[in-house]
Amino acid sequence: MSFALDPRLERDTLPVADWALCCVRLMNDARFPWLVLVPRRAGLVEWHDLDAAERLQLAGELARASEGLQGLTGAHKMNVGALGNIVSQLHVHVVARSPGDAAWPRPVWGSGEAVPYEPAASNALVASLHATL
Amino acid sequence: MSFALDPRLERDTLPVADWALCCVRLMNDARFPWLVLVPRRAGLVEWHDLDAAERLQLAGELARASEGLQGLTGAHKMNVGALGNIVSQLHVHVVARSPGDAAWPRPVWGSGEAVPYEPAASNALVASLHATL
Repeated sequence: MSFALDPRLERDTLPVADWALCCVRLMNDARFPWLVLVPRRAGLVEWHDLDAAERLQLAGELARASEGLQGLTGAHKMNVGALGNIVSQLHVHVVARSPGDAAWPRPVWGSGEAVPYEPAASNALVASLHATL
Repeated sequence: MSFALDPRLERDTLPVADWALCCVRLMNDARFPWLVLVPRRAGLVEWHDLDAAERLQLAGELARASEGLQGLTGAHKMNVGALGNIVSQLHVHVVARSPGDAAWPRPVWGSGEAVPYEPAASNALVASLHATL
């Protein structure tokens, strides 16, 4: 079985980069600077499905994404989470949060409806992410 | 500066175990089987504040907690997340989720009010966790 990105993740996100383990995607929701990292390994659902080498790799890629996105946005707090109650394919959210954002201090998941980026805005953000991450 | 557990985390959770990096606590909310892992290192706020050795350790302890709690509860899905919008001290939630629980499929954070365990129930669960994790 080869890896294929879940179609709901593909629909809701825009491609940013492929790292050693994960594909890095931008959530298409202009309310929050929000990355999703998806390990390119078929069949993963839970954090504990990763083997030790993959855990190390994922933990490092999460740090890279979190530090880079916080640096780019100046966010007050980063939220990192693997939930998967709706899309079971293992994916980890890295979300830049600040007081006054559309869900603060509640979690972003399940909070209102996504507001898609204007294409020019998402293109500019993806370019900034390429330069920063 | 030495490590001290944030007083809100201390108030809302019950002690389970001390692992190599983290203290493991049970959220005092009978609605969800819910562990909180807190690295015993002063000054950590973000995932990317961990150094590489600590990331490896934390990622492994999260896997141990997630696999053990899922085994104990038979949960459909584990939720793993470090948010910290309210309590900034780095802490990672490991929550056992199943369809029909009090928040499904939404996240547990910010979902209604905690329902404290009866002492006999939390004592029994902590004993089971000691035997399982």
